[in-house]
Amino acid sequence: MIAAREVTGRLGRLRALLESEQLDAILVSRNAAKRYLSGFVIARGDEATSGYSGTLLVTPERQLLLADARYLEQAGDEAQGWEVMRTTRPLAAELAALVLSLRLRRIGAEANVLSHADWMAIGSAAPDLELVPLDAPLAELRAIKDEVELTALEATTALTDACFGHLLTFIREGISEQEIAWELEDWFRRHGAEDLAFEPIVLVGARAAMPHGRPGMTPVRGGEPVLIDFGSQVDGYRSDMTRTVFIGEPSERQRELYALVLAAQQAAYDAVQPGVSGTSVDGAAREVIAAAGLAEAFSHGLGHGIGLETHEAPGLKLYARPLRPGMVFTLEPGIYLPGEIGIRIEDDVVLTEDGPRWLTNAPRELLVI
Amino acid sequence: MIAAREVTGRLGRLRALLESEQLDAILVSRNAAKRYLSGFVIARGDEATSGYSGTLLVTPERQLLLADARYLEQAGDEAQGWEVMRTTRPLAAELAALVLSLRLRRIGAEANVLSHADWMAIGSAAPDLELVPLDAPLAELRAIKDEVELTALEATTALTDACFGHLLTFIREGISEQEIAWELEDWFRRHGAEDLAFEPIVLVGARAAMPHGRPGMTPVRGGEPVLIDFGSQVDGYRSDMTRTVFIGEPSERQRELYALVLAAQQAAYDAVQPGVSGTSVDGAAREVIAAAGLAEAFSHGLGHGIGLETHEAPGLKLYARPLRPGMVFTLEPGIYLPGEIGIRIEDDVVLTEDGPRWLTNAPRELLVI
Repeated sequence: MIAAREVTGRLGRLRALLESEQLDAILVSRNAAKRYLSGFVIARGDEATSGYSGTLLVTPERQLLLADARYLEQAGDEAQGWEVMRTTRPLAAELAALVLSLRLRRIGAEANVLSHADWMAIGSAAPDLELVPLDAPLAELRAIKDEVELTALEATTALTDACFGHLLTFIREGISEQEIAWELEDWFRRHGAEDLAFEPIVLVGARAAMPHGRPGMTPVRGGEPVLIDFGSQVDGYRSDMTRTVFIGEPSERQRELYALVLAAQQAAYDAVQPGVSGTSVDGAAREVIAAAGLAEAFSHGLGHGIGLETHEAPGLKLYARPLRPGMVFTLEPGIYLPGEIGIRIEDDVVLTEDGPRWLTNAPRELLVI
Repeated sequence: MIAAREVTGRLGRLRALLESEQLDAILVSRNAAKRYLSGFVIARGDEATSGYSGTLLVTPERQLLLADARYLEQAGDEAQGWEVMRTTRPLAAELAALVLSLRLRRIGAEANVLSHADWMAIGSAAPDLELVPLDAPLAELRAIKDEVELTALEATTALTDACFGHLLTFIREGISEQEIAWELEDWFRRHGAEDLAFEPIVLVGARAAMPHGRPGMTPVRGGEPVLIDFGSQVDGYRSDMTRTVFIGEPSERQRELYALVLAAQQAAYDAVQPGVSGTSVDGAAREVIAAAGLAEAFSHGLGHGIGLETHEAPGLKLYARPLRPGMVFTLEPGIYLPGEIGIRIEDDVVLTEDGPRWLTNAPRELLVI
C-alpha cells in the first residue's frame, strides 16, 4: 500500500502527460506502473491469471482501476483514492463503454506491454478512437525515486549486503551452485524479504562465462571463482548485486582480470554526475576494459535502472539524456572469456544532487574464501 | 533438454500448420512454446532480460533459434537439432534480413504474446510481408501431452500430493498464512522441485473469499477453514492443487458447503469423456452449485489446461470443442461468500481413451486437523 501523499504526487505527474501529449486519457497496463500509481499489487505468478485486473484509466477528472470479481476486495483495500470498477467483459468491451461515456478520443497506452491482439481490439472498441504509444514517458515517470522509494531501496540493498555476508560463511569446496542459490533464497525469506528480485545466478569457474547461465550441480572447486548475481525484494523494491569470489588463491591472471573489472566499475562511478548521460557513463567503464584489449569480452550494457522492476529506466548504455538526482541504477561491468572465466562486479547506486552514492555496501575488493 | 524423437514429432506437427494455414514460416515467441519445440529454457525472472533469445523461426526446410551472445552457449547445449543463430540487432532488423534471404511472405506469429510495438516493427521489416495471428493453433499444439510429458506431470502432481501430506502435519493453530506458504516452498525445493508452479495462495477463514488473495500474517484459528492453492514444477511441468481444510470441527453449514463443492467436482469428473466439450464439463459442475442457489458464488471457470504453463489450453469454460485423450487439466469448482468463507477443491486430471484419471491423489474429502 502507498500513502495518499504519494498517490497524489504520482497521479499529478501522470496527469501532466495528459496535457503535454494532448491526450484525453492514459491507460496503464504494466504491473509495476499499476502498483506505483495505485498501490494495487499483482503477485508473482499471478500475472497469467489476473487478466487485466489492476489496469488503470486516468482522465483529467477521474482515476479508475478495473478489476474482475476475484480482485475487487483486494483492489478496494490497496488502491486508496481510486474508483474501483468491476469488470466482467474483455478489456476492449469494457473500454468501449468507458470511451463512449467519457467521450475519449485520444488515449495513451503502452505499446511495449499490451499485446498486438489487445491493442487492435481496444483501438477498434469505438469509432474515432486513437491509441498513442506512451511507453517512454511512462517509464520516465518512475525513473526518479521519491523518499518512500529510497527507503525501500535502502532496505532491500542492505538485506542483500547482509545475505552476502552470510554466503561468505556458507560457501566452501564441494557445495554446488544450486545449493548456494537455495541457501540465499532461504536466507532472504527467513530475514524479511517478500521474494527474490530474480532467479539467482550462481556459476562456478568457466561456467560464469555464460552471463545468464542457471545454477546447476557443479560444485565449488579450489582455484576457481564463483560468480553470484542475486537480489531481494522488499515492499516491491528490488536489489541486484553480483560478486565473483575465489576459492583458494587466484592466479596472477585472475587477479589482473578482477582488478580490471573493478577499475572499470570505479571509472563508471567516478563519471556519474547529474547532467551526465547514461551513455557516457557506460563509455567510461568500457574504455577501461577496451584499453586492456578486452572490449569484446564486455558483452552487455553497463547497468540498468532498478526499482519496482529489476530492469527499468534508465538503461545506461542507450540513455543519451542527462542522468538526474533520484535515479537509481546498477553499475555492473563484466568480462567473459568462454572456456576460461567470467567475472562481474555489480552494485546499486543512487544519484544525489552531489553525485553518486553506493546503495550496495558489501566489499568490492577481491575476496578469497 | 528434450530428446531428438520428441523434437522431431513436435516440429512435424508445427510444420503441418505451415501447410494448413498457408504460411511460409512460423515465428514462436511464447516461452513455453519455445521450450516445448526446442528444449531451450528461459529461467523464471530472466524473461525481462533475455530479450527475444530463444525465439524460433521455422520454415519447411529450416529451424532457426535466435539468441544473443549471452545465451548462445546455453542454446547450443539445450536446443539439439536447431540451428542457433547469433543475433545482435533488434528483432525486427534481424527478421528483415531473414525474410529477404529466405524469401518469406506470410509468417504466422503470436498476436497475444508479441507486443504491439514488436508486431508493427516486424510487419514493416520487409515490403510485402504479412504477419498472421496464429495463437490458437499454437496453443492447441501443446494441449495433448505425449508420454514424456505425462511422466513429468505424474512426477510433479505426486510431489504436490506428498507436500500436502507434509502440510497436514505442519498446520496447527497460531501458524500464519505466510508461514504455511513458506513451509511448502521450502519443502518443495528440498524434495526435488525446481520451482513453484506459481505463488501459493494460503488464506484463513473469510479471507479465502478472495479467490486470488495473497498469504499474510493472519494465523490459522480453530473453527475456521484454511484454503491452500499450490503446485510444484518438475522438468518445467506444473501441478496445481487446492485443498480447504478445517481446524477443529466445522459447523453444519460449513460441512454442507464443502459437500456441495465436492459434489460439483465429482459431477465434472463424471462428465469428462473423449468427445465431450470443455464447456459442457464446466456446465456439469455449475449446475450442481446453481441447484443449491449459489450460482453467483462460483465466480470463475471450472478449470484450465496445465503443462509447461500453469494455465494453458484447454480453458474448460470457453472450450466448445471436444476434449481429446492426452489432455491434462484442472477441475476446481469453488464457492466464495464475502465476509463468511471461501472453499475450493482443485485436482489435476488426464483424459485417457477410457475416460478421466486423477493425477492428484491426495484425499478430496473434508479433512479436520
